Amino acid sequence: MNLLNETIQKIGILDKEMMKKSRERVDNLIKPPGSLGRLEEIVVQLSGITGDIFPKVDKKSVIVMAADHGVFEEGVAAFPQTITAMQTRNFAKGLTGVCALAKQAGADVVPVDLGVLEDIEEEGVINKKIRYGTGNMVKGPAMTREEAIRSIEIGIEIANEEIKKGKNLLATGEMGICNTTPSSAIVSVIGDFDPMEVTGVGANYPTEQLIHKAGVIKKAIEINKPDPQDAIDVLAKVGGLEIGGMAGVMLAGAAAKVPVVVDGFISTAAALIACTIEPKTKDFLIASHASLEKGAQKASTLLGFKPMLHMDMRLGEGSGAVLAFNIVEAAVYMNNEMITFAEAGIPV
Amino acid sequence: MNLLNETIQKIGILDKEMMKKSRERVDNLIKPPGSLGRLEEIVVQLSGITGDIFPKVDKKSVIVMAADHGVFEEGVAAFPQTITAMQTRNFAKGLTGVCALAKQAGADVVPVDLGVLEDIEEEGVINKKIRYGTGNMVKGPAMTREEAIRSIEIGIEIANEEIKKGKNLLATGEMGICNTTPSSAIVSVIGDFDPMEVTGVGANYPTEQLIHKAGVIKKAIEINKPDPQDAIDVLAKVGGLEIGGMAGVMLAGAAAKVPVVVDGFISTAAALIACTIEPKTKDFLIASHASLEKGAQKASTLLGFKPMLHMDMRLGEGSGAVLAFNIVEAAVYMNNEMITFAEAGIPV
Repeated sequence: MNLLNETIQKIGILDKEMMKKSRERVDNLIKPPGSLGRLEEIVVQLSGITGDIFPKVDKKSVIVMAADHGVFEEGVAAFPQTITAMQTRNFAKGLTGVCALAKQAGADVVPVDLGVLEDIEEEGVINKKIRYGTGNMVKGPAMTREEAIRSIEIGIEIANEEIKKGKNLLATGEMGICNTTPSSAIVSVIGDFDPMEVTGVGANYPTEQLIHKAGVIKKAIEINKPDPQDAIDVLAKVGGLEIGGMAGVMLAGAAAKVPVVVDGFISTAAALIACTIEPKTKDFLIASHASLEKGAQKASTLLGFKPMLHMDMRLGEGSGAVLAFNIVEAAVYMNNEMITFAEAGIPV
Repeated sequence: MNLLNETIQKIGILDKEMMKKSRERVDNLIKPPGSLGRLEEIVVQLSGITGDIFPKVDKKSVIVMAADHGVFEEGVAAFPQTITAMQTRNFAKGLTGVCALAKQAGADVVPVDLGVLEDIEEEGVINKKIRYGTGNMVKGPAMTREEAIRSIEIGIEIANEEIKKGKNLLATGEMGICNTTPSSAIVSVIGDFDPMEVTGVGANYPTEQLIHKAGVIKKAIEINKPDPQDAIDVLAKVGGLEIGGMAGVMLAGAAAKVPVVVDGFISTAAALIACTIEPKTKDFLIASHASLEKGAQKASTLLGFKPMLHMDMRLGEGSGAVLAFNIVEAAVYMNNEMITFAEAGIPV
């Protein structure tokens, strides 16, 4: 709890003075003011985060948190649970979707085992296992409060290590079969939505069984009665270890003034946890792609996110966030490579 | 006219057999089928275009067509006309928005003067001037039919030269103060919309003067009576030289089986011209970003485009298309770097 509290204490506000300077400069680049839209907003945000009018995002990592879920036994996934372990190993081997996209974006993939059911023992996967999967949240809390805090603190530790290595842009990713179920539960509790409003097909779950999936979420919430004001309580009772890990990455990024790109549904649920713990965290996050999951859309709206990529993607792993690394980098290129009207000798 | 006709003759259909094979492979990569959404669709389209199950997009150019517009004198722009010449020179110097984004995306910028009012004489700008700006379309046709054909053929020539150099991914961009006006006119004529429905603020044009701008477009259409079935007639009467050039790039790409990424409003208007000339062209185009211009949205719908990037951008120059180069490249990385379930030794 010390690390978590220390991290929360460190989270400040954006450098408004630098944002004003950055906006002035961006408005004076040789283009109509505002015409590069979200690219301009990203640069101004990065300047506010880093306190630098020329922020850098040339060292990038996607931290991929992996864990299993006890609620799997309620029949809420279309894929077998062994996929979690298999893909966790494949992250280290560079074979999955996020690995391919990270290679294109020039980013490192950092896979972390927080609670996969199997022992992983694969070089390149960081072993931080807290337990072998969560408990079935329909029968009681997914984990203890201490385990939930530990999952967040592991996220902080991993992010801090990446930042120590010089990384100046992070992203969150995850692997955990059936983790759209705890994500929907989190959005339902924190956003006060009926589970049916925030339950989608996840990874190819049959549409005709959505009522069952939403019913499982409803039951888990009724049995555990998580306190929507207490994000750690929500995470412990109806969340997941990898979701806690991602929330930790976001808090650590905010504390260290390093921007964190948020992936799709599961990452956005983690952002809800992080921003309920410390609302100032939000200013350090960059939304990436618009997930097709209904719950992601609701959570995005709650957080005021404006996803830039509309790719109909729903893989997870951090794939959408890594794709957005290109956009964030492009924004920095705009800022670094374009000249101002004054530099061009043109009176405005 | 020979080059144009020859090019149109060469445009074929996509390789459906290869697309089926590509879809099969993409569905069998280690992820839930369909979960990488638009990235999967792009790979299948690229396979259909190139006839290759492993298409390449590692050599990229954005061709930036520049020209001025006689209709400027009707007061339809917020910026002085000299900006066209200034930015055309700046493309060659690497100082503009598209240059910055092209550097990030690893793409060449190929600026072409098709009809800038001033002589450019800047190393790196290809001089293909047809005339010094179009005529004022409110007083008669913007150009002759021969000039319109010549503008398209120049686009074909430039694209063919890039393709000869080994480029396997092209994009269209443009520079021409007040060119949202002819673009709106084109969308209005070909899409049968009232000018007011397709007229927007372009580059910071004052909202309160939109009725004037739409009125100018209405008058130009009434005076010239372009035939919506004859795209060259539309281009000549209410279009622009750079718009013809971009349509030529698209036709040449389709003929040579090289994909062309289409930028925002002006490029989409050019796509309407190209696809009215030869509807099969559409299958070789990739939409990039959702322009804020109303006319762009209407034209996108007409063409069945699904823009991927929602960046609130409205710079033009090819900036959105170049940003999307990253996405197209990411799709190819997905295809090349991920393994299939069979390759992973996993029974499906």
